[in-house]
Amino acid sequence: MTNFLLYLTPIAAVVALSFAFFKAVNIKKYSEGNEEMVKIAEAIREGAQAYLRREFQVVSIFFIVVFVLLYIFVFLGYLNVYVPWAFVTGGALSGLAGYIGMSIATKTSARTTNAARTSLNSALRIAFSGGSVTGLTVVGLALLFLSFWFFLLNGIYADLGEAARMQVVTSIMLNFGMGASTMALFARVGGGIYTKGADVGADLVGKVEAGIPEDDPRNPGVIADNVGDNVGDIAGLGSDLYESYIGSIVATCALAVSAGFGLNGVIAPLAMSAVGVLCSIIGMFFVRTGEDADQGALLKSLRRGIYIAGALTAILSWFVIYKLLGMENIGMYFAVVIGLLAGIGVGLVTEIYTSDQYKPTKEVAASAETGHATTIIQGMAVGMGSIAPFTVIIVIAILASFVVTGGLSSFNKGLYGVGLAAVGMLGTLGITLSTDAYGPIADNAGGIAEMSHQPPEVRVRTDALDSLGNTTAATGKGFCIGSAAFTALALIAAYREQVLMIAKDINMTDFVLDLSVLNPKLLGGLMLGAMLPFLFSSLTMKAVGRTAQAVVKEVRRQFREIKGLLEGKEGVKADYAQCVDICAKASIREMVPPSLIAVASPIVVGLLLGVEGVIGLLTGSLLAGFCLAVFMGNAGGAWDNAKKYIEAGNHGGKGSEAHKAAVTGDTVGDPFKDACGPAMDILIKLISMVSVVFASFILQHSIF
Amino acid sequence: MTNFLLYLTPIAAVVALSFAFFKAVNIKKYSEGNEEMVKIAEAIREGAQAYLRREFQVVSIFFIVVFVLLYIFVFLGYLNVYVPWAFVTGGALSGLAGYIGMSIATKTSARTTNAARTSLNSALRIAFSGGSVTGLTVVGLALLFLSFWFFLLNGIYADLGEAARMQVVTSIMLNFGMGASTMALFARVGGGIYTKGADVGADLVGKVEAGIPEDDPRNPGVIADNVGDNVGDIAGLGSDLYESYIGSIVATCALAVSAGFGLNGVIAPLAMSAVGVLCSIIGMFFVRTGEDADQGALLKSLRRGIYIAGALTAILSWFVIYKLLGMENIGMYFAVVIGLLAGIGVGLVTEIYTSDQYKPTKEVAASAETGHATTIIQGMAVGMGSIAPFTVIIVIAILASFVVTGGLSSFNKGLYGVGLAAVGMLGTLGITLSTDAYGPIADNAGGIAEMSHQPPEVRVRTDALDSLGNTTAATGKGFCIGSAAFTALALIAAYREQVLMIAKDINMTDFVLDLSVLNPKLLGGLMLGAMLPFLFSSLTMKAVGRTAQAVVKEVRRQFREIKGLLEGKEGVKADYAQCVDICAKASIREMVPPSLIAVASPIVVGLLLGVEGVIGLLTGSLLAGFCLAVFMGNAGGAWDNAKKYIEAGNHGGKGSEAHKAAVTGDTVGDPFKDACGPAMDILIKLISMVSVVFASFILQHSIF
Repeated sequence: MTNFLLYLTPIAAVVALSFAFFKAVNIKKYSEGNEEMVKIAEAIREGAQAYLRREFQVVSIFFIVVFVLLYIFVFLGYLNVYVPWAFVTGGALSGLAGYIGMSIATKTSARTTNAARTSLNSALRIAFSGGSVTGLTVVGLALLFLSFWFFLLNGIYADLGEAARMQVVTSIMLNFGMGASTMALFARVGGGIYTKGADVGADLVGKVEAGIPEDDPRNPGVIADNVGDNVGDIAGLGSDLYESYIGSIVATCALAVSAGFGLNGVIAPLAMSAVGVLCSIIGMFFVRTGEDADQGALLKSLRRGIYIAGALTAILSWFVIYKLLGMENIGMYFAVVIGLLAGIGVGLVTEIYTSDQYKPTKEVAASAETGHATTIIQGMAVGMGSIAPFTVIIVIAILASFVVTGGLSSFNKGLYGVGLAAVGMLGTLGITLSTDAYGPIADNAGGIAEMSHQPPEVRVRTDALDSLGNTTAATGKGFCIGSAAFTALALIAAYREQVLMIAKDINMTDFVLDLSVLNPKLLGGLMLGAMLPFLFSSLTMKAVGRTAQAVVKEVRRQFREIKGLLEGKEGVKADYAQCVDICAKASIREMVPPSLIAVASPIVVGLLLGVEGVIGLLTGSLLAGFCLAVFMGNAGGAWDNAKKYIEAGNHGGKGSEAHKAAVTGDTVGDPFKDACGPAMDILIKLISMVSVVFASFILQHSIF
Repeated sequence: MTNFLLYLTPIAAVVALSFAFFKAVNIKKYSEGNEEMVKIAEAIREGAQAYLRREFQVVSIFFIVVFVLLYIFVFLGYLNVYVPWAFVTGGALSGLAGYIGMSIATKTSARTTNAARTSLNSALRIAFSGGSVTGLTVVGLALLFLSFWFFLLNGIYADLGEAARMQVVTSIMLNFGMGASTMALFARVGGGIYTKGADVGADLVGKVEAGIPEDDPRNPGVIADNVGDNVGDIAGLGSDLYESYIGSIVATCALAVSAGFGLNGVIAPLAMSAVGVLCSIIGMFFVRTGEDADQGALLKSLRRGIYIAGALTAILSWFVIYKLLGMENIGMYFAVVIGLLAGIGVGLVTEIYTSDQYKPTKEVAASAETGHATTIIQGMAVGMGSIAPFTVIIVIAILASFVVTGGLSSFNKGLYGVGLAAVGMLGTLGITLSTDAYGPIADNAGGIAEMSHQPPEVRVRTDALDSLGNTTAATGKGFCIGSAAFTALALIAAYREQVLMIAKDINMTDFVLDLSVLNPKLLGGLMLGAMLPFLFSSLTMKAVGRTAQAVVKEVRRQFREIKGLLEGKEGVKADYAQCVDICAKASIREMVPPSLIAVASPIVVGLLLGVEGVIGLLTGSLLAGFCLAVFMGNAGGAWDNAKKYIEAGNHGGKGSEAHKAAVTGDTVGDPFKDACGPAMDILIKLISMVSVVFASFILQHSIF
């Protein structure tokens, strides 16, 4: 049975990738529509591909430099020889996951628009198919990567006993997150700056100054805006969740040994993820809707798929845990269920705070009547307030998963339980990510409908899909940051284990780890850690602002210099490529400083304040990063939907003063929810990963 | 010598209060100007007095309820019998400090306006005299309160040996902060909601909709706005700093015993504060300027006073520490100096981020050219970015004061050193608070000049004073939050001591305090603690929003219903009292929920997660509260000064689109910098104080 569960992971990986391949081939069978639509889709595709190529070039340089550095560390004896290779492969697969997802998304949008010309149901099916290719590719590649290294390392260290082998294998694998996390941070930050720079810039001139609708083909920034949706919201998202997924699994594996579980404890998170992937694929078959479906029915159809996948995973996990860890550790199963439930909980909270069906968003919309400033104040108040229920859910879930897994009597078992809860939460990532990645496809489909002058009913249908996408995107973000809290905690615990192990290995006999919050080194780390997410957000927001201003200037220039453009004269075309180019250049330049700070901070703090300072840094970043991510995500979501609510005819509707104020709110929310917020969950894990990799070095060379 | 230093504290208290009285009497000798000015000043004074009366009524009820509760705890054996009395007297004196400061401020404004009719120098002298009455009253009352209880308790427990007596006396005195902190939170939150509700509401209709200048007498909200300056920025500020001052001293006293210092260690912070008060008075004599002074010269003149006071304090502290703690502990002196230097450091950082002389504020002003949204994004980026240098200074100062006081070999001595650094930072509060309280007086003087139709040169002079006031106010806020970080840390350490002592007293022999960040209870507390400042800000911002909207509706109604008001017809008067009443009612109603949450949270978390959860809560709040306070204070300051920078003729000047966007930024910044931000530093100390008071109860009754 153990053997079967051991092989389940590569099997699930292959099934997921095959299924994604099959879906991708199937999507291509559909028509992209008329010549104009094909041309627009082509422009978006080219822009997105060109951006990713450039991004990968810059990131490659960074990866090569770090690879060389890591290799030097290997020679100096601070690192296992496989770590640099794992770093590079992890990063490459993370990039690949994003790339494949984006490629298929750019091929799906126009087909969705075209399908929307006939029916809503077929449009949903195509858009969701596109999203599920992303979802399945991400989980498939992640499981493939983990299986490959797991089997390889097991073979290499085959002459060690099981306990010692697991110790070595998991502590090497723990280092593997750094590549994926680094790539994810670059993708999220670069993509986020791109998409929001383009979006804000295009909106500021187009909607606010020139008074033309969103996605209007006269706006020179419109293609860049649509490219941005793909590079930020799909490629960025894919890399992001790939990283979350890997992080939660390797952290839990690493805690298995100290929890006393050996091989079976290492297989458990892998096997459970495999089960989750297979259940996600089953769930996908349940996503469909009737033609007369409203937004509620659409949401229900997506939810049905997610809930079926979740329920199946919950049932099958019992067998996995029972077989691997035995009836005496069945508490571990409940940790998995707690993780799943917490995921649903944070999803619901996110919905309450960001959907226009509920009071918070309605209040933001109402505050738009008294102007820009009150809209901003109210939206921020909503975002900050939303942290409370979010935190309560996560705290209860962490404590509960610690207690049910026997943490009160065995501390390390409890921590392993917390890790399993994260794995449980992300178990059905295959399908939740599909519903998440479907959003930008629908968004782009709407853009293509607008630009290719489709009849109104087509835009109505794509709008229905898009609006739903906003809700699923917000839920997906809640999910990301919720699981990040668990994973980061597990990573901090794993880091502590790692440090204690290394200290033993290098015979630091008098080494004691004082993790008291009153230890000044740790406290200094805590304060610096809490500051880090704010600094990171500040840099990212400024970058979005600068990029947006560059776009604003270019769009204004084109409106001024290209005669007849704004008037919509026949045959006059905007120079879209210029805006695409500006965004690409700016975002690639701007993504480097915040990313470097993230990578460097645990090393710098470690050298100054030692391992205890690093643990403080990680904890402080977790605390502040979590709060900021929830705040920014939900404030952004509420502003976005408050604007949509007004556009639906409330508080004066489109064009009213309230609408203008709501647009301001939405514009402020853009970098919040799509650039800074989502990068937080990567940030707090990346610095843990970097800390793990440099643990041995810091341990031996810190000043204090 | 010890005896002399012991009596220095009451002596300094009496000197400060006498000096304040002398200054107050002196101010009254000046004329309030013509009949119209007297009338306006009278209206502001009445509104402010009426508000404070109402506030005190509500707060009294709260205090009586808590007093009764505390007395029940006394009977149940959880508390010392003097704690309820100390709670009430602490609160009463805190309120009194705010009340006296506000009374004198409302008497000084018109006199400042009148003096500005003749010269800038005399206006500065009167305004600063008014501010120094507030400053001296606050420190005088605080030292009086502490001396009274110190001598009383020493007398009561005279039959105990010195060590045991100090143990009892300081642990009772540690409970004394709660009254002051509770009062301060009510005053800050209530006053903040009042002043910013009125300010935002009046601006939204007056400046944005009706296009009339600030402080225009046609605006029905104008008196409420000016009342708000007094109740929020003076009464609130006074109570706030009274609380900070008391908190830093009692926390340090409480740590003296475990640091092994006995009586002398307890006297040291008291004597040092006394020295600081006397030096502050000397410094005040150096604040004067020539008639042709520009803003730079004015600032220099205020700074001269502060620096002289600081330098004198630094020199004299050496003798205090040397006499009391001996040459072998002279490291403690360096902690004091580090505190003073850190205070100057955070002041400079605040200035760089909020003054229009530097890049950050200039960038915010420039971003106003592309509209409301980019102004908000840029301002937030500036605020969030400013946390980094702030944190670095505080972390270095904490670590340095820990290390120089021998913390590496004696943990408790190091913590006592951190406490002394806080005392050092606040040592010259007498004069820094004077420069801080002078700001709103100048602001009001400008308002009175505008409303009583003074010639332009008068307004120019009051504007010069006011603009300077913005800088000193921002510096003062940096000071508050900087010292709060030290004090909160000292309080957390003192809480830990208190808990260990109580556990010993009640024979909990198996009691172990696990303060590891990985202890799930502590971690849960950390997460809830980090959430708390966000929740608190959310509630406060919503309250400001609601109050502002009520004012908006009332102002709009008056403009609509009172014929000739907006046109400025002779003899037509706005109904100012109505707006004053709306603000008062709203702010008193709205101040209760956030304050209750602050008081209740350590008790609730304590009951659920025990003492370790409470320490997590305190630390988490410290981390997030510190970051939020710096973020909000500096973003608000940058927006305010960016607006002033544009009004000075840059980026299109007054009335341009950029100006409108800058007004939006300023309006968002109002609740940030004057309601939420300043409440943070009280919040993080108040929850520590509440925790201390309920320590025994929580220790015996927590669920986990």
